[in-house]
Amino acid sequence: MTRVAYVDGQYLPHHAAAVHIEDRGYQFADGVYEVMGVVGGFLLDEEPHLIRLARSLAELQIAAPISNAALRVVMREVIRRNGVNDGIVYVQITRGIAARDHAFPKAARPVLVVTSRRRRPADPHAVADGVAVITIPDIRWQRCDIKSVALLPNVLGKQRAREAGAFEAWQVDAAGEVSEGTSTNAWIVTSDTTVVTRQADSAILNGITRLAILDIIRREGYGFAERPFSVAEAKSAREAFLTSTVVELLPVVRIDGAPVGNGQPGPLSRKLRECYLAHASAAGAA
Amino acid sequence: MTRVAYVDGQYLPHHAAAVHIEDRGYQFADGVYEVMGVVGGFLLDEEPHLIRLARSLAELQIAAPISNAALRVVMREVIRRNGVNDGIVYVQITRGIAARDHAFPKAARPVLVVTSRRRRPADPHAVADGVAVITIPDIRWQRCDIKSVALLPNVLGKQRAREAGAFEAWQVDAAGEVSEGTSTNAWIVTSDTTVVTRQADSAILNGITRLAILDIIRREGYGFAERPFSVAEAKSAREAFLTSTVVELLPVVRIDGAPVGNGQPGPLSRKLRECYLAHASAAGAA
Repeated sequence: MTRVAYVDGQYLPHHAAAVHIEDRGYQFADGVYEVMGVVGGFLLDEEPHLIRLARSLAELQIAAPISNAALRVVMREVIRRNGVNDGIVYVQITRGIAARDHAFPKAARPVLVVTSRRRRPADPHAVADGVAVITIPDIRWQRCDIKSVALLPNVLGKQRAREAGAFEAWQVDAAGEVSEGTSTNAWIVTSDTTVVTRQADSAILNGITRLAILDIIRREGYGFAERPFSVAEAKSAREAFLTSTVVELLPVVRIDGAPVGNGQPGPLSRKLRECYLAHASAAGAA
Repeated sequence: MTRVAYVDGQYLPHHAAAVHIEDRGYQFADGVYEVMGVVGGFLLDEEPHLIRLARSLAELQIAAPISNAALRVVMREVIRRNGVNDGIVYVQITRGIAARDHAFPKAARPVLVVTSRRRRPADPHAVADGVAVITIPDIRWQRCDIKSVALLPNVLGKQRAREAGAFEAWQVDAAGEVSEGTSTNAWIVTSDTTVVTRQADSAILNGITRLAILDIIRREGYGFAERPFSVAEAKSAREAFLTSTVVELLPVVRIDGAPVGNGQPGPLSRKLRECYLAHASAAGAA
């Protein structure tokens, strides 16, 4: 099956899917994106993803290139053409093509790109044994609540993690508090079994998986707090984990080389992962 | 004459000049760029631009896609094919094309894009009467010394200036000190005729025009200091100006609506602009 991408109104073979060199996404990182899960052929948490996409666009004053109804059709068509049953859909919208000049162009028309691919199988070791994170300074801009493609600091942070043999880098703000991972939200479980994750301010992206986990925590009746936590608090936490659309929920068992708790995935992390997978399966079966 | 762009080894008609949707410049702002002046068909300050380009690439661990000797040839060919005598050359290098994943891909090959266009004539009013700037919080990342394409905050800042009827926005750090404009360096002249511009730390891009102006200041024997200055100091300065490859040197006569000095371009700003244009012409005649 030939991979197909949707680019600005056309379904193209993946190898030929291209954007103009003066697309502002390429020259200015002037665009936003979403990554949605596909479960059993269905889009997971489509509505909150579309709401967040609309918010990112509004924050940058980029008009939606097509209606949400049309975008839903395009995403389904891309999924279908790529034969994706379990995987992800990637949606990118940039301000469009214009002669290079920083300020918003008067006449540009936003460009939409949609791709889809099958899920890479989760590393069974990552799920069973947990993953390691390192901590690094958060050097990003001050509007990380906008899901923009200006991801260079995230790239550099993820690479540092990879080189350190870790799965993720938790970014730490000037106050010494963890903001989030480079592509995941960060969580701890305190000694009194309170689940803690940073409040959704402009320092983090409000993950859709984060919101789903918070819903599960409320439903299951666990204690939780949305507040910052320091690296020291994380290192002495009972459990830690990270979440995103792509990795779902993975236990964190080492921070900067030191074990979290007993160095094994914690029971609450396991439980929340199970609940999240059930949430995802239910969406697929809906 | 059909405009031509160089894209990854090929000279293409401008309208057909495209990069793959999985080019990391498009998905991650994972790339760098340079803008060089073309004066009388010659490249202005080519050597320092190439040195800075190499530094940006090294900071991001992106390999040069071709040798500097080859890049010099390509830039000249793009200039020639576009019939540019006075204008600019734009060079962008990204980490290359790879399946989307934040960390550096193992096998990607950096992609080079080179374009050239004629200089838009300088607004005679801007030169004769000076320009206005506004001040805005500097919300950018902490590695502005790298000339990356992660320019979204600069885009938003420039747009705010445009909407305020100003030419540029001077970005102000948490300490209340001006870092730089969104696409220009910021300068003031104090009451004792000392020219002040921020030191080239990680908060600013070390402009090639900035370096040329500093050379001129040294040569002409003016007092200068590379240090931060506050918005208040700028507003009470005798003169102010801004510099970049594209705008060269423009006097700043209003900051947040308040006149700088007597609200007219200052004599030292005029003098330094003349010296800079002479420097540029000499390069063109070389």
